[in-house]
Amino acid sequence: MDEDVVAKTITDIEGVYASGLHCGIKPRKKDLAYIYIPTACASAAVFTRNKFVAPCLTYTRKMLSKNTVKAIIINSGNANALTGDEGYKNAKQTAKWAASYLNLKQSEIAVASTGIIGVQLPMEKIESGLARLLETPFKQEGHIAAEAILTTDTFTKEVYFEEKIGKKTIVVAGISKGSGMIAPNMGTTLTYLVTNARIETDELKKFLVDAIDDSFNMTTVDSDTSTNDMAMIFSTGERKFQLTSKEERDLFKALLLKACIELAKMVARDGEGAFRLLEVVVKKAANIGEAKQIALDIANSPLVKTAIHGADPNWGRVVAAAGKNPKNKLNPEKVDVFFGNIQVMAAGAVIPFEREDVITYLKQDFVQVTVDLNLGTSAATAWGCDLSKGYIDINTRYT
Amino acid sequence: MDEDVVAKTITDIEGVYASGLHCGIKPRKKDLAYIYIPTACASAAVFTRNKFVAPCLTYTRKMLSKNTVKAIIINSGNANALTGDEGYKNAKQTAKWAASYLNLKQSEIAVASTGIIGVQLPMEKIESGLARLLETPFKQEGHIAAEAILTTDTFTKEVYFEEKIGKKTIVVAGISKGSGMIAPNMGTTLTYLVTNARIETDELKKFLVDAIDDSFNMTTVDSDTSTNDMAMIFSTGERKFQLTSKEERDLFKALLLKACIELAKMVARDGEGAFRLLEVVVKKAANIGEAKQIALDIANSPLVKTAIHGADPNWGRVVAAAGKNPKNKLNPEKVDVFFGNIQVMAAGAVIPFEREDVITYLKQDFVQVTVDLNLGTSAATAWGCDLSKGYIDINTRYT
Repeated sequence: MDEDVVAKTITDIEGVYASGLHCGIKPRKKDLAYIYIPTACASAAVFTRNKFVAPCLTYTRKMLSKNTVKAIIINSGNANALTGDEGYKNAKQTAKWAASYLNLKQSEIAVASTGIIGVQLPMEKIESGLARLLETPFKQEGHIAAEAILTTDTFTKEVYFEEKIGKKTIVVAGISKGSGMIAPNMGTTLTYLVTNARIETDELKKFLVDAIDDSFNMTTVDSDTSTNDMAMIFSTGERKFQLTSKEERDLFKALLLKACIELAKMVARDGEGAFRLLEVVVKKAANIGEAKQIALDIANSPLVKTAIHGADPNWGRVVAAAGKNPKNKLNPEKVDVFFGNIQVMAAGAVIPFEREDVITYLKQDFVQVTVDLNLGTSAATAWGCDLSKGYIDINTRYT
Repeated sequence: MDEDVVAKTITDIEGVYASGLHCGIKPRKKDLAYIYIPTACASAAVFTRNKFVAPCLTYTRKMLSKNTVKAIIINSGNANALTGDEGYKNAKQTAKWAASYLNLKQSEIAVASTGIIGVQLPMEKIESGLARLLETPFKQEGHIAAEAILTTDTFTKEVYFEEKIGKKTIVVAGISKGSGMIAPNMGTTLTYLVTNARIETDELKKFLVDAIDDSFNMTTVDSDTSTNDMAMIFSTGERKFQLTSKEERDLFKALLLKACIELAKMVARDGEGAFRLLEVVVKKAANIGEAKQIALDIANSPLVKTAIHGADPNWGRVVAAAGKNPKNKLNPEKVDVFFGNIQVMAAGAVIPFEREDVITYLKQDFVQVTVDLNLGTSAATAWGCDLSKGYIDINTRYT
């Protein structure tokens, strides 16, 4: 991780305000956050593809279709999911309260929730929490907002990347939360990104979808998809940061992808109970769809995940997972497999390798597994984590 | 489980011989078995759909295409998978040795292996093991064969079902092994069935494929698919047990399905580290494919599996898993959910239920979760198990 990833956050972009506090949804930890970009010229989001969509997301999607959203209120500890009409009313009420403090129209406020499913939001706590949180709305406390959106996460996830594009220094910054119920279908987590680049909403949406496809949609902790996932991006809209050429747009897309991948990797690294970040690279696949699918099949395999946990060079499980989907093109006699830089299989046959060296490598907190199919020209990378008893502990006790 | 499931086994069918012993592939436990049906008139098998197919299965598939197979040699402790040409030669050599003891052509012998991947078979041990095992080949020790094919299993899996079909008492008996790397793609385990019904090979194959589709292909422990899975059936071929009418065939199909489901449930119950057998019933789905997919999505969900392990009535995870695949038809506002007979959700909304009653129910060793989609007329059942620390222990240490 780069040093500046930790040091700077979303509120280091001019015109971005955010903070968080404890309002009482959780017993002790911070559970209510806002992000406020009064000058926002564009906003876009992607949402969970789970059939059970939390009412807060239904609400937010509707607002985004109406106008540019300029603020979002996020609570953690309660997902406001499977809560029916009352859940929808509560999301709307939250936006209404926030609008009065932020001098925005209610439709300019998005709402998101994460935490336990099927319990109505404690609206009195949210009302009084918002009163304290938004009394002074121009706080530049992105780190606190990043903390207040967490659930079972063990650390905050923040990125801040900048790059000279033309004569403009363009910034993309973001915060994420996510640790369990992480699977590749849309946002798969809560992610809020801000950029100073000036881009129209339609284009921003397209860029976001593409970036999420190659980052969060390639990240898996447990193959489960939440009802509340979303990723959202705001543009602060300063005219001097207008992107003008295709080249500038391409550079921006690369910057956005970099930010999303870094956040996605943090989510995988913080997978419930995880000790190691697992990066699976599939090379020379027949096509991009199969490259992605095989990378995810490996990253999702409980047998691969437990082997990585035990620092066991079990290439047999890696290839078994690579070959599990009969629809994919894969010639067993062409497959090469690597743990880090150490090759363990060539052309489908095991080759002699120093077992102890691989074990030492697998004991690190970042493990890369590469499967070269030697078939075509497509490549993909997926991120996941090992599977430990910690995952069982967290998810057996979670209520 | 019925009493007779435990009491009788494959060798209680006349003309079926089987046994097993320890030949030294494993440190102590039995690791070599045979099943021998000298009069076999038909034999059929289904195999793993993993792209990496163990050479023993390639060999066996070839023999089945040539003639009726009348015996199978199975070793446990070593999968003879990812072992290349030498692995194929070793499978062939095993059949050759067995043929000389059993007075069969080499092509009439099938070979199967299960255990660690990527290590060549210890052929000297197999040679001397076969000499002892097959010296007296007419042993009626099906229980011992059932024991000798196990790997991480904690109990043997045997069924024996009979039914009057016309004036004939038709029997289907079988043994299975399977505990981890169990996912729904073909056999997903080793299963050997024998029937006294006389059926032609082509028809037997068709019946087997159908029965496996609704039993083992609906069983999941960890979503991983082995390189060595197979299910095989032999007909002892007595003329008096010839199936003559469509009605008799239908009754036989039902009996075969019952045997396969019972074995599949034993495999799920013995899932690595499992405390409970999880049965997921999906009702009134739009079509059979989606009914099966949704049932498997729920049974495969690590979050559902850990909730069941913790006896946590977490219906939120059940519906999130049911809704995770955006391709499936599912109307959240129509879904009913039950734990056993206790309804917890009606028309997509939680209903009041006695939490303690559900917890008591979930603490049993058989747990049924029913999701009624109230959309169409298709139903499906999947079998799985809870996810415990035992799974992590077994698969972190397995080498």
